[in-house]
Amino acid sequence: MTSIQSDARLQQVIGLLETVCGCSYVITGEEDLRAYGSDETQDLYFPFDILVKPADEKEIGELLRICNRYRIPVTPRGGGSGVTGGALPVQKGVVLSTERLNKIITINETDRYVIAECGVITQELCEAVEEKGLFFPVAPTSRAFSFVGGNVAENAGSMYSCKYGTTSRYVINLQVVLPNGEIFWTGANVEKNATGLDLTRLFVGSEGLLGVITKVVFRLLPKPRVSALMLTGFDDLAMACEAVIAIRRSGLSPAAAELIGHSALQLTRAYLKESFPLTADRIKAHLLIELNAADENRLAFETETVAQLLGEYTQDEIFLGSSSPEKERLWMIRRNIGNALKSENRLYRDIDVCIPLSFVYRYISGVEEICKREGVAVACFGHVLDGNLHTMLHWEKASFPGEDHFAAVLHEIYDFAISNGGVISGEHGIGYLQKEFMPLQFPASSLRLMKEIKTVFDPEGIMNPGKVL
Amino acid sequence: MTSIQSDARLQQVIGLLETVCGCSYVITGEEDLRAYGSDETQDLYFPFDILVKPADEKEIGELLRICNRYRIPVTPRGGGSGVTGGALPVQKGVVLSTERLNKIITINETDRYVIAECGVITQELCEAVEEKGLFFPVAPTSRAFSFVGGNVAENAGSMYSCKYGTTSRYVINLQVVLPNGEIFWTGANVEKNATGLDLTRLFVGSEGLLGVITKVVFRLLPKPRVSALMLTGFDDLAMACEAVIAIRRSGLSPAAAELIGHSALQLTRAYLKESFPLTADRIKAHLLIELNAADENRLAFETETVAQLLGEYTQDEIFLGSSSPEKERLWMIRRNIGNALKSENRLYRDIDVCIPLSFVYRYISGVEEICKREGVAVACFGHVLDGNLHTMLHWEKASFPGEDHFAAVLHEIYDFAISNGGVISGEHGIGYLQKEFMPLQFPASSLRLMKEIKTVFDPEGIMNPGKVL
Repeated sequence: MTSIQSDARLQQVIGLLETVCGCSYVITGEEDLRAYGSDETQDLYFPFDILVKPADEKEIGELLRICNRYRIPVTPRGGGSGVTGGALPVQKGVVLSTERLNKIITINETDRYVIAECGVITQELCEAVEEKGLFFPVAPTSRAFSFVGGNVAENAGSMYSCKYGTTSRYVINLQVVLPNGEIFWTGANVEKNATGLDLTRLFVGSEGLLGVITKVVFRLLPKPRVSALMLTGFDDLAMACEAVIAIRRSGLSPAAAELIGHSALQLTRAYLKESFPLTADRIKAHLLIELNAADENRLAFETETVAQLLGEYTQDEIFLGSSSPEKERLWMIRRNIGNALKSENRLYRDIDVCIPLSFVYRYISGVEEICKREGVAVACFGHVLDGNLHTMLHWEKASFPGEDHFAAVLHEIYDFAISNGGVISGEHGIGYLQKEFMPLQFPASSLRLMKEIKTVFDPEGIMNPGKVL
Repeated sequence: MTSIQSDARLQQVIGLLETVCGCSYVITGEEDLRAYGSDETQDLYFPFDILVKPADEKEIGELLRICNRYRIPVTPRGGGSGVTGGALPVQKGVVLSTERLNKIITINETDRYVIAECGVITQELCEAVEEKGLFFPVAPTSRAFSFVGGNVAENAGSMYSCKYGTTSRYVINLQVVLPNGEIFWTGANVEKNATGLDLTRLFVGSEGLLGVITKVVFRLLPKPRVSALMLTGFDDLAMACEAVIAIRRSGLSPAAAELIGHSALQLTRAYLKESFPLTADRIKAHLLIELNAADENRLAFETETVAQLLGEYTQDEIFLGSSSPEKERLWMIRRNIGNALKSENRLYRDIDVCIPLSFVYRYISGVEEICKREGVAVACFGHVLDGNLHTMLHWEKASFPGEDHFAAVLHEIYDFAISNGGVISGEHGIGYLQKEFMPLQFPASSLRLMKEIKTVFDPEGIMNPGKVL
């Protein structure tokens, strides 16, 4: 894989791409490219050669064919919401922005699916289906700007994954474009499909390695009619974790269950400069439980059952939010952890392991020990019920001990998670940042198979080079 | 791909396999092989050379390596419950029975998964997890003898797939063995996993083409506490289909919804020789709706809502079964359709399309027209809510018009289903019987990719040759 090595070759390729997309959508001005050289991944920035904004899958097919012939790296880009560098043009070449493929094509209420172009914003899709009484439950935190195609490419999760799973569960069909320009649908718009190897799910989570996802078909659910949010605090992290296990073993299925560890709590309280319930120093953890149901009776029953269970593990008050403003207030701390970490000239690095629920307490305690020994601040919080915790290492910018030290700490934490049954990423993907850690999790056989599968789809290796494998 | 061409070569291979599995588990006597040359697929039978019954994945690895070196076809076999010939040794060689890998290894109640060897019988796994208050919702009709590994290989569905999806949704990790003898786990025992290409789901539904699945890890659900079954009849098939659509649009999620068309009803009534409610000639369809819930209140609400909706589409009585014997009686007709079709020197062929719900009425009417024109009897029934209908063409043995005529009718029905958004198989897989119809559903690009992916896993083409692709 090479980038565009000479000016003459660059001009030639630009000319060809312009015949496909039109001059206004083949962009090379340094200033215009700037925003597309970075995404939500730390402060990383990679300059590159050409930005293309094709109108549809046909144009994408033609421009991929050109790049394939000239062996030019192509980095597909959705909303740029990724945090592992999946959309960064690390080997220069072409960034293919899907922002013009932004139409919701069909919402089928009888067959209960939605067909959308890959560049539709998640939030818009959610709202459009909710207007029809339907529900797409996997909207990541970045829903206000993430694209549905990117969600599929990353197998994105959401706060609600503990009840509803990740994006993979909802994808029934994808329109994809291969580097050789072939355009086809991988599946069908039906609920069950036992025909051939599952190419649909091979594209889910493929992070742009195989081709470009141009249209998605998601199965939908009926919209839950009512929901409630509960918040309580614990003097002891172990008790918070035990409470979560008790809720799971009760047979209830909360829509969300978020744990906020002590340092995340303290950091965010300081950032918000406002008093919130249950944020005294003695409080070692918050637990937020969201319940939803098809009717008020069921919701009341579940709320009461959860309250009783929580009461066995904490003496603190249990706050219940039913109205939107009440819920907003209870979410306030959780929603602002990211802002707190980004403030005041701080640097942070996000670890997105998914581990077994039974290991959560030992994981958090172990990570805190590692970080204490290594002189790194750490804030743990996240989707506790499905074991997908976000572990944020953070520093004041001035005191960042350097990438090597960071990598060593990360390595130790990943080893600890993996040797206890965990994986490197629950929902953020591997992208550019986590690539070097894949051999910690996967045996050589798996990595070889993944590489060879990529080669089947992308023999010239132009698709998102430098990522995942 | 060749079979074992000479006696000397055969003896040599037998000797090698015996050093791996022991003499008692390498079987060549014609009588002992007989039962393994057929499965539940019509009356097909294929003789073959060697039956092996390895003890574990290590033995499987060693014997696959031998077969790979000698380029001997290997047909993996679970419970032999398949109906599309996936386990038939159509190119002779070795049948690898997984019947000795029959242990449930762990049921983890906190992390809510079960680890089982591939040869565990589905029903045994279901009962073992239910004893712990958990639920594995994808037990196919053949649950009494199908193996869990086979369910994964076929991406099996169940009566409950309209609410709970198919096997794919529950598989989080697989231990697999490649033809080169490599043994590894494809995933991890966690709820969310966004790491690398999804090899786990590539093995789900792979029908033995890629390697042997030796251990499975299924995520589990809390067990629903209560359920009820409703049965009613309709004078008009169109009204039955409208009723199903109304139930879906109500936002309720029945656990099962089975439609029985007029001829299936008449055939089974005659077979059972007993009087059942709503089987008068004027009744054109039965609808069975099973509801389940976490508590009685919710169940009562759903039952009432469904009864009201049904009442808008039929004047017939709505039977409600709550106790086991009541439910058994309501299921009686549905459970005996297969027996009725197999009786009295009849031949039948099973079509397993999955189509959009909105197309069900037009599909059944269209198929009835095709069959009438072609002089073939047809019985339609099945999982109507998820569009996975079983369409049984049947004949008295003496009057079977021959395979060519059958294939022509099948071709026309598949064309009709596919051109309206359907797929060839919702839950039975492609196997040996449906292979020739794959090009009707898939574009050349998809078929080429599937073949090349198979070659990545199985370069010598020894794994289940003659199937799917």
